[in-house]
Amino acid sequence: MSKKIVVQKFGGTSVGSPEKIKAVANRTSQLLENNNKLVIVVSAMGNTTNQLVKLSKEITSNPSPREYDALVSTGENVSASLLAMSFQSLGIDAISLTGAQAGILTQDLHAKAKILTIKTDRIKKELDDNKVVIITGFQGINPNADVTTIGRGGSDTSAVALAAALDCEECEIYTDVDGVYTTDPRKIKDAKKLKEVSYEEMLEMASLGAKVLHPRAVECAKENKIILHVRSSFELTEGTRVKEVNQLEVSKPVTGITINENEAIISMIRVPNSPGIAGDIFKELAENSINVDMIIQNVLEKTDSNNISFSIHEDDLDQTLTITKSIAKKLNCKILSDTSIAKISCVGIGMISKPGTAAKMFTALGRKNINILRITTSEIKISCAIQQKDAQKALEVLHKEFELE
Amino acid sequence: MSKKIVVQKFGGTSVGSPEKIKAVANRTSQLLENNNKLVIVVSAMGNTTNQLVKLSKEITSNPSPREYDALVSTGENVSASLLAMSFQSLGIDAISLTGAQAGILTQDLHAKAKILTIKTDRIKKELDDNKVVIITGFQGINPNADVTTIGRGGSDTSAVALAAALDCEECEIYTDVDGVYTTDPRKIKDAKKLKEVSYEEMLEMASLGAKVLHPRAVECAKENKIILHVRSSFELTEGTRVKEVNQLEVSKPVTGITINENEAIISMIRVPNSPGIAGDIFKELAENSINVDMIIQNVLEKTDSNNISFSIHEDDLDQTLTITKSIAKKLNCKILSDTSIAKISCVGIGMISKPGTAAKMFTALGRKNINILRITTSEIKISCAIQQKDAQKALEVLHKEFELE
Repeated sequence: MSKKIVVQKFGGTSVGSPEKIKAVANRTSQLLENNNKLVIVVSAMGNTTNQLVKLSKEITSNPSPREYDALVSTGENVSASLLAMSFQSLGIDAISLTGAQAGILTQDLHAKAKILTIKTDRIKKELDDNKVVIITGFQGINPNADVTTIGRGGSDTSAVALAAALDCEECEIYTDVDGVYTTDPRKIKDAKKLKEVSYEEMLEMASLGAKVLHPRAVECAKENKIILHVRSSFELTEGTRVKEVNQLEVSKPVTGITINENEAIISMIRVPNSPGIAGDIFKELAENSINVDMIIQNVLEKTDSNNISFSIHEDDLDQTLTITKSIAKKLNCKILSDTSIAKISCVGIGMISKPGTAAKMFTALGRKNINILRITTSEIKISCAIQQKDAQKALEVLHKEFELE
Repeated sequence: MSKKIVVQKFGGTSVGSPEKIKAVANRTSQLLENNNKLVIVVSAMGNTTNQLVKLSKEITSNPSPREYDALVSTGENVSASLLAMSFQSLGIDAISLTGAQAGILTQDLHAKAKILTIKTDRIKKELDDNKVVIITGFQGINPNADVTTIGRGGSDTSAVALAAALDCEECEIYTDVDGVYTTDPRKIKDAKKLKEVSYEEMLEMASLGAKVLHPRAVECAKENKIILHVRSSFELTEGTRVKEVNQLEVSKPVTGITINENEAIISMIRVPNSPGIAGDIFKELAENSINVDMIIQNVLEKTDSNNISFSIHEDDLDQTLTITKSIAKKLNCKILSDTSIAKISCVGIGMISKPGTAAKMFTALGRKNINILRITTSEIKISCAIQQKDAQKALEVLHKEFELE
């Protein structure tokens, strides 16, 4: 019988110290007894990436993306080789491969490059030689053989892309929580672990601030029909499987509630009302890979101008301000920004077949005197921007309202 | 006029912090005004390599050489990209290249690989694009594209090999001392900086413990007729040039005195006196890249056995004991080791044309009651093993005796 390839990803907390790295090797080595071939994707140890970023900031506030990638990618090289050593010290043959060595080819773009293809020859050769293959997450190379990185949290995506390239059914994501919950269990004690969740729901939850999985990883898993198994690095219990789920088999309208307190709202005041301007603004933001959410445009009465406002991640605030201010200068309009915003979202594929979910959400918030600043919806999600100070209260009332305890 | 390529190497102390890295960029950027093309080879920042070694030791006492190289080579990647960022922040175009990207191909050997060839296409392309090219020292790749390292202090060798591959006349080695001295100035206050020194002398001094230059780098410079200019990273004064020197033009018999307190002596007692055994022993040590010095073999009277003793660097002691003990087991002989030894050496190409130097050295030591344990000589060097406790006294008397103040 040919052996099955298992792809596992261990995040920064899971490989945060030499002891933890040894524990990973110990744990996963048991899997080899079941006649598996192991591919392990690792992030950088604990705080390493932040330390490297700090070093670069001491040199310049604006490093070139190429050098930035060359720098931050070294964190994964360290953890990968240390994990390979750990396996070897258990008497298990293992090898670490960098993104370049593993054949992970990306766009010619830095800091946020997409994986284009994976040339798996070297990986397969090493697996055929009965080695555990440990691959640096987060990085690849562009056509010039320069190191690229695929964005923060990108190791999840690396793992899924590898699982797809290696024809695996499932990809195991080991992390410091033991699964996906109805909401953040640090905020709501009664939060419940979900046994399974659909790609669409996970995607909404990942984009909205549930830090368990990177949204691009979920997208990539969905496209390639890879089941993601999110589970604890430290316990042996089953976690949450992210997979295809039939909406009609879901009994509750809402599966989970997420809160994102790192939102910022940008408002462009008195934008001239001529065709193509909004398009220009959002095109430029997109070209800089800034994710824009909750766009609202009001036509101002008796004028030829609009107010356009939209929300972004706080991390993108500086860059967004630079871009919008340069546009605003040309258009002679004004830019305001607000970072005291939180976004609370109810997510569930069940709401497709169960109308009235939005009304229920707004009523529950209103009952607690929580002001809704703006609303966006998708087929399986309703989001409200609220004041940050109301965030906890809103979470509590909605978690109860949709019977998620 | 076509621009001249200048190769500079900065060691770990010179790039020990973000501030120091910025100082390097500042200093060397001035050179660009003189119509030069700059190639800079860097070591890892300060103590980084030791920290990486420490991490690996927390995993296993015996890491596989491949993973060890993959791990420790990351230190140079960090300093190279930080230095590139520093140039960029001064408005100077720069790019960091890893050993792989710079085309540095080595033997398929880890930890102590030799550079076989350098494919300079990428370097030349970047120089032609008017970029300062910063290259990670100490590392290359083997034919499998796996990272190899060329041994501690190997960044010097990287720099010289690059200077040779790029047809440079001179290679500048920036370090934390401002040149080569008649002896260690921390030990002898009157030590004098040498304006120039021959490859042969430098080679003896480098091998014998003067920490300024790695011996392989001197060897490589000699073979390729590259002038090495050893100078301070922190001051602008001229340093010491290591170059071809005619022995007849040298007035003093001794140019410098070195002391090495990291010697160990291994003695193999009662080795059977049959042909080929000594060869076997030293062949196995050589295959493990252990440098053996001062071999002494005594035939024991009225027996068929010898005592063989030799000195090695203390760092190689564990490995040497493992090898010799395994041989000793087969031969039924005994192994002793002694690490309380120092080796003091007088070096000078002048001694070729001036006889009596050895006698002068032994007499001076004898006058101070310093016991000479063993002696080795070459054309331009006389070395004596002495007790470590006599080291300082020996250095003082010989420095004076040969009028080096």
